[in-house]
Amino acid sequence: MSFNPDSNVSNIFASDYASSDIVILGAPFDGTVSYRPGTRFGPAVIRQEFFGLESYSPYLDRDLTDMKICDIGDAEIPLGNTLGALKAIGEKVKKALLDGKRVVTLGGEHLISLPVIEAYAVKHPDLVVIQLDAHADLREDFCGEKLSHACVMKRVYDILGDGRIYQFGIRSGTKQEFDFAKTHTEMHRFDLERVADAVRDIGRKPVYLTIDLDVLDPSVFSGTGTPEPGGASFNAMQKSFFDMEALNIVGADLVELSPHYDASGVSTVVACKALRETLLIMGKQQ
Amino acid sequence: MSFNPDSNVSNIFASDYASSDIVILGAPFDGTVSYRPGTRFGPAVIRQEFFGLESYSPYLDRDLTDMKICDIGDAEIPLGNTLGALKAIGEKVKKALLDGKRVVTLGGEHLISLPVIEAYAVKHPDLVVIQLDAHADLREDFCGEKLSHACVMKRVYDILGDGRIYQFGIRSGTKQEFDFAKTHTEMHRFDLERVADAVRDIGRKPVYLTIDLDVLDPSVFSGTGTPEPGGASFNAMQKSFFDMEALNIVGADLVELSPHYDASGVSTVVACKALRETLLIMGKQQ
Amino acid sequence: MSFNPDSNVSNIFASDYASSDIVILGAPFDGTVSYRPGTRFGPAVIRQEFFGLESYSPYLDRDLTDMKICDIGDAEIPLGNTLGALKAIGEKVKKALLDGKRVVTLGGEHLISLPVIEAYAVKHPDLVVIQLDAHADLREDFCGEKLSHACVMKRVYDILGDGRIYQFGIRSGTKQEFDFAKTHTEMHRFDLERVADAVRDIGRKPVYLTIDLDVLDPSVFSGTGTPEPGGASFNAMQKSFFDMEALNIVGADLVELSPHYDASGVSTVVACKALRETLLIMGKQQ
Amino acid sequence: MSFNPDSNVSNIFASDYASSDIVILGAPFDGTVSYRPGTRFGPAVIRQEFFGLESYSPYLDRDLTDMKICDIGDAEIPLGNTLGALKAIGEKVKKALLDGKRVVTLGGEHLISLPVIEAYAVKHPDLVVIQLDAHADLREDFCGEKLSHACVMKRVYDILGDGRIYQFGIRSGTKQEFDFAKTHTEMHRFDLERVADAVRDIGRKPVYLTIDLDVLDPSVFSGTGTPEPGGASFNAMQKSFFDMEALNIVGADLVELSPHYDASGVSTVVACKALRETLLIMGKQQ
Amino acid sequence: MSFNPDSNVSNIFASDYASSDIVILGAPFDGTVSYRPGTRFGPAVIRQEFFGLESYSPYLDRDLTDMKICDIGDAEIPLGNTLGALKAIGEKVKKALLDGKRVVTLGGEHLISLPVIEAYAVKHPDLVVIQLDAHADLREDFCGEKLSHACVMKRVYDILGDGRIYQFGIRSGTKQEFDFAKTHTEMHRFDLERVADAVRDIGRKPVYLTIDLDVLDPSVFSGTGTPEPGGASFNAMQKSFFDMEALNIVGADLVELSPHYDASGVSTVVACKALRETLLIMGKQQ
Amino acid sequence: MSFNPDSNVSNIFASDYASSDIVILGAPFDGTVSYRPGTRFGPAVIRQEFFGLESYSPYLDRDLTDMKICDIGDAEIPLGNTLGALKAIGEKVKKALLDGKRVVTLGGEHLISLPVIEAYAVKHPDLVVIQLDAHADLREDFCGEKLSHACVMKRVYDILGDGRIYQFGIRSGTKQEFDFAKTHTEMHRFDLERVADAVRDIGRKPVYLTIDLDVLDPSVFSGTGTPEPGGASFNAMQKSFFDMEALNIVGADLVELSPHYDASGVSTVVACKALRETLLIMGKQQ
Repeated sequence: MSFNPDSNVSNIFASDYASSDIVILGAPFDGTVSYRPGTRFGPAVIRQEFFGLESYSPYLDRDLTDMKICDIGDAEIPLGNTLGALKAIGEKVKKALLDGKRVVTLGGEHLISLPVIEAYAVKHPDLVVIQLDAHADLREDFCGEKLSHACVMKRVYDILGDGRIYQFGIRSGTKQEFDFAKTHTEMHRFDLERVADAVRDIGRKPVYLTIDLDVLDPSVFSGTGTPEPGGASFNAMQKSFFDMEALNIVGADLVELSPHYDASGVSTVVACKALRETLLIMGKQQ
Repeated sequence: MSFNPDSNVSNIFASDYASSDIVILGAPFDGTVSYRPGTRFGPAVIRQEFFGLESYSPYLDRDLTDMKICDIGDAEIPLGNTLGALKAIGEKVKKALLDGKRVVTLGGEHLISLPVIEAYAVKHPDLVVIQLDAHADLREDFCGEKLSHACVMKRVYDILGDGRIYQFGIRSGTKQEFDFAKTHTEMHRFDLERVADAVRDIGRKPVYLTIDLDVLDPSVFSGTGTPEPGGASFNAMQKSFFDMEALNIVGADLVELSPHYDASGVSTVVACKALRETLLIMGKQQ
Repeated sequence: MSFNPDSNVSNIFASDYASSDIVILGAPFDGTVSYRPGTRFGPAVIRQEFFGLESYSPYLDRDLTDMKICDIGDAEIPLGNTLGALKAIGEKVKKALLDGKRVVTLGGEHLISLPVIEAYAVKHPDLVVIQLDAHADLREDFCGEKLSHACVMKRVYDILGDGRIYQFGIRSGTKQEFDFAKTHTEMHRFDLERVADAVRDIGRKPVYLTIDLDVLDPSVFSGTGTPEPGGASFNAMQKSFFDMEALNIVGADLVELSPHYDASGVSTVVACKALRETLLIMGKQQ
Repeated sequence: MSFNPDSNVSNIFASDYASSDIVILGAPFDGTVSYRPGTRFGPAVIRQEFFGLESYSPYLDRDLTDMKICDIGDAEIPLGNTLGALKAIGEKVKKALLDGKRVVTLGGEHLISLPVIEAYAVKHPDLVVIQLDAHADLREDFCGEKLSHACVMKRVYDILGDGRIYQFGIRSGTKQEFDFAKTHTEMHRFDLERVADAVRDIGRKPVYLTIDLDVLDPSVFSGTGTPEPGGASFNAMQKSFFDMEALNIVGADLVELSPHYDASGVSTVVACKALRETLLIMGKQQ
Repeated sequence: MSFNPDSNVSNIFASDYASSDIVILGAPFDGTVSYRPGTRFGPAVIRQEFFGLESYSPYLDRDLTDMKICDIGDAEIPLGNTLGALKAIGEKVKKALLDGKRVVTLGGEHLISLPVIEAYAVKHPDLVVIQLDAHADLREDFCGEKLSHACVMKRVYDILGDGRIYQFGIRSGTKQEFDFAKTHTEMHRFDLERVADAVRDIGRKPVYLTIDLDVLDPSVFSGTGTPEPGGASFNAMQKSFFDMEALNIVGADLVELSPHYDASGVSTVVACKALRETLLIMGKQQ
Repeated sequence: MSFNPDSNVSNIFASDYASSDIVILGAPFDGTVSYRPGTRFGPAVIRQEFFGLESYSPYLDRDLTDMKICDIGDAEIPLGNTLGALKAIGEKVKKALLDGKRVVTLGGEHLISLPVIEAYAVKHPDLVVIQLDAHADLREDFCGEKLSHACVMKRVYDILGDGRIYQFGIRSGTKQEFDFAKTHTEMHRFDLERVADAVRDIGRKPVYLTIDLDVLDPSVFSGTGTPEPGGASFNAMQKSFFDMEALNIVGADLVELSPHYDASGVSTVVACKALRETLLIMGKQQ
């Protein structure tokens, strides 16, 4: 891999920082997860397995080798210190935004989206968030804690306000969360079928795309902390990537891969392929 | 869990027996399974994982916290003694029926449905059975044994007779079993699409619902003794729960979860979610 | 299994060689795989698990007990010697063809199809190949090696030429491979929906069917070296078996089961069921 | 394996019945196990993996190829029927003893030793039993059942009486079992160090050797239903084989391998190597 | 388990609080672990599996049924909040000490020992700590965090001062940690052979025993976050329990079982057996 | 890891090539393995996990940070081409030797030692080889192939001749191999106890140390293709490192880690720790 000076397989993410358009940031934090931890290992396994993937997508007929992407490594996470972890992630993102980069962040748990979106909301006051997720993540607090992956979209809502969050695939939450969504977010329950409609609504507004990979059915994505049966097939997600090509995506993240629950390795391949497609639809916009 | 006196998470199944409408009974028996044993661990893991689930179902827009359910523990199974095991299960059920409860039994292998349905057939002479299953379970005997999970629906047929068993999702069996079904049961092969039709046929007759979880495709439910590719998706099963809300369900069971073949834990989550939906559609009828 | 002289379960593949129509050959070779090896264990586990399967298919309403099939064991593979391995496989197949048998070969990796198809192309100069696969396998070479499972269909093309290879389910490859396919093969990307059209085109020409089981979605078939999300469901493959019953299938193989990545055992069951259906549609033609 | 007519690897157990001295019998029964079932798969995996082993033992400087051993397959087990299972095993053994063979039985759970020793006790009225085991297995009954693997040595005691059972490695049981052993069996707790002493005591009396593989420490033998930390190392067991070469072993069994708890495959290799050494020390006596 | 009203297996930990001498407390916290998290599941699996164990120890010839032990459940852990978690654990312990109980705490990661020992040091100003561990845990900070499981014994040292901490089995740490130990703690590297010496030194002083189960060799205890080859065998630990029977143990904990890395289940059995022996040697002192 | 520009954890192997004394080379080849493949993944996982290890060894009281080590990446392996693979490895080693480096090679299967030792034998005509291994590896050929990991030490013998190979821990092989060793190699069977004797014999001759990690008992090292019960404990190997500090080690390799059979991750930690100790005893000699 990167250790082999003769190899060129890893060149895909190896544009130099100065000339790159997109930077990849790892956010290996899983400090608030309520059930099975382990998403801290997500960035490492995605990097390790990514280079086994074809760089060409027959779905989008585009190739990663035509893009300029630089891997800037991981934010350093102080273990057991939630505020410190979020701050470390936020600072990495702010610096990259100042340098004119778009950031694709690899979780870690979903709470890592909070400091990233905070930074983006400063740069893009009209920011819209698209969330693919099994869970509403709209709790006010979880067992008394406001900084929890079960509350992350409520915290994002506190920043952005009504009508700025588009939620797809949601199939789990309290009655209160679903009631909240009725008046405050654009929630489309259970599946991804209405993504194309949202794309038309949003037009050219700057979009931050946050993909909680547990939006997928656990049949194809078991490697996550809180699997929720009844989710999207990979092809349904693939179709939504196709639909989202028309958007102005300024940043994105993929979260909640927990590789130790992925005995077959399939979840990691799924995460890598979703990352490839995310990058390629961002590439279209250049 | 139940060990923590400060916790209220387990209150869902903790109505007192007297005031409860539905009782949960564990039947950890797997003595006749022909291939991979281990369903004896089903009740324990369902109980352990159930409380990680949301009590609210966005599919049915109902909440378990509005119901009165009491967990009455497991039937005590004498190891290596099939007749003794069935008797122990039957006695638990008979007592609960005398007390006016509806019983939801957690297997264990499918043979545990036999003593339960026997008890129900006495109380409800016009009982109808709905079976979701990959296997016909209509063999006269299996390697000479009449009390086998491969024969359980034939034994139920011996009690109820023609036209009283509705079978859905069946995709495996001998030619003899499929031939038998043509004239004696209402068998709908391969999928769950005709459940709504059956619901209309059955009307308000008392229904016993037996769910062999292997009716699901092994992609989402690998944790079972004899997985059969080509099964229902979780969403297809979810739709059938929606369809069955109109029924008068007097009892139910969920069988054949074998957690040691569920490395990712997804099958257990599936079983828990199916249990939640089963309880919620039974709750509608109160 | 074969060890138990009192058992008759294994009689299905135990016709004597002389009277058999179809022979089963194991090709436990995985020497060129680029990612995760282990398909060498495929033939052994398929044989071990096959007899747990019902011999009757409710999909095709046919029974294996009505066919004459003989298991002729494995080709002996010299470890670390690719040319020697292919030669050993080819010789087994040539002998069987001389004896008037049809051969169903169990991989091993996909490269094992090369010596088999070479032998078939001699006997059937108008041979057509149907390939179910996630990968195009049309590379000219892989890291300089022409004998690689990533190149096997290009090597087959070198023998058969334009328009003789029908490819279904292909969803991964280089841009070059997809471009090559546009003019040289009949490639149907992503799914199996056009199989019925191909069956009509092909008519009564002799067909060799090569099934790389990774054509299936990894949700139901994780036990393979290079899983590709976005594949066919088992039911979609089942429908294509139904469609292919009309063909004149002279030989077939099933490749790329890697049982050590199949913790739940489901992939092996899938492979066995695909083998049963393949045999049954070949049986129709007798 | 046996499917490959060109292979000779399986010849070790393929002496013809008539000329063989020792027969291998599978007893795939696990109907009474109190904790984790699955020993029914023991005989199959031992046979599958045995041929990967060297036939030569550098410890004993002997080779299996010099012996005459015939695999007579499995006893047919009626599922869910404990009495029927024991009877089927006993009949196989009785026939082999009548034919002048020595029998090595592969479990299955430990209860399978009961019908075997019953048959041996008829033929050899002065039979002595050596038991290597973590558990005393001396309960009078287990949850009311007298036929349980937790009671098997008490049942054997009921046949043989005082001073005829030598127990080694015992480290788990009730106080009652340990008290019983003080006056009725030759129990050596915790380790195998006193095996050589017992060998001297026993002299040329006919010995039946029953090896519950859980006598080994779970570090090297995790694949069993009730692992007990603090057991023997493989080398300690190897030394006891060396010590037992001087005995007149008329029969033996190896029980309680449960391969589904053996993710690494090491337990199966251990079982195979223990089987090889057992056979070789029996071979010395010819 | 506790769900079964007819069962008496769980009575061992079910003395009523008032009459109990020892209380069991769960501390399911793993917020600062540097490598593989998951010890939060430790208390749950120990409780689940404990009742499969014999209550009698043939090593100590004592039985748990002769003791009065009450399980008081888990401390409630606010996720992602290290200080809050430690406070919750500390308060549970303080209350139990006020009520005159001895506390045995089940981790969780090793940092949970800190609030427990803090409470004990107030009650017993002459407290001595015995630590069985693979790691020195004497870092001043870990990546800037002072509250980390890698620093826990340094934090304990900050409370107790020189010569009050006896460390056994230590085989991993920085040079600084080993240098610190030379003058400030009683460190015995690599093994447990000097435990008996320490027991003599300590005499009747009140002892808190903290067992980081990774002191065991990973061959028998793989289910932990940072396995260290070269550790103690189970029998070596068993011997040290025997040696420690003479001590005046006022409290204890067992930490760092991470059951998701314990595929075979052996580590959990080891933890349960270590808990049984710990309780029994505490029982001797009554 | 290397992706994080802010991190300094990976500095241990990151000396620049020019100033380095020792280079690390990966040889991810597993083309000839007879049983379970997968050692190709060895170098990658060792690199990934190595940095979780302490750089300081309390056994040797030395620290890797005091050494100059450069990771030169992997030899590029042409898949399915044994000769090409060995040539690629050999060329990497020859170049490093020309540059005055000592090489520590990470397998891969044991055959990779052949081209390495070939290169060393040219540079050091009086080279002595120390082999720690479960298997003699002295077959003349394996199923007709002379280039096999089962023959590697015979091929090395063909280069070096009598009395130059010291073998320790050997406990598996054919009678022929053990007979050959009696007159041609210094074979010490079963354990590592005589390593110190050999160290005295060898004196200051240049030594190549080849460690087949399956020399360890599978209890602590299950992650290998052909586990052999009865091997060395980790502490026994640790002691032999201590003994070998006095040697003039000019090169070394560690082979046969197969991480896909290492579910708990312990084998990889063992391999990393063995690598650390190997490097540290080589460092002593500078």
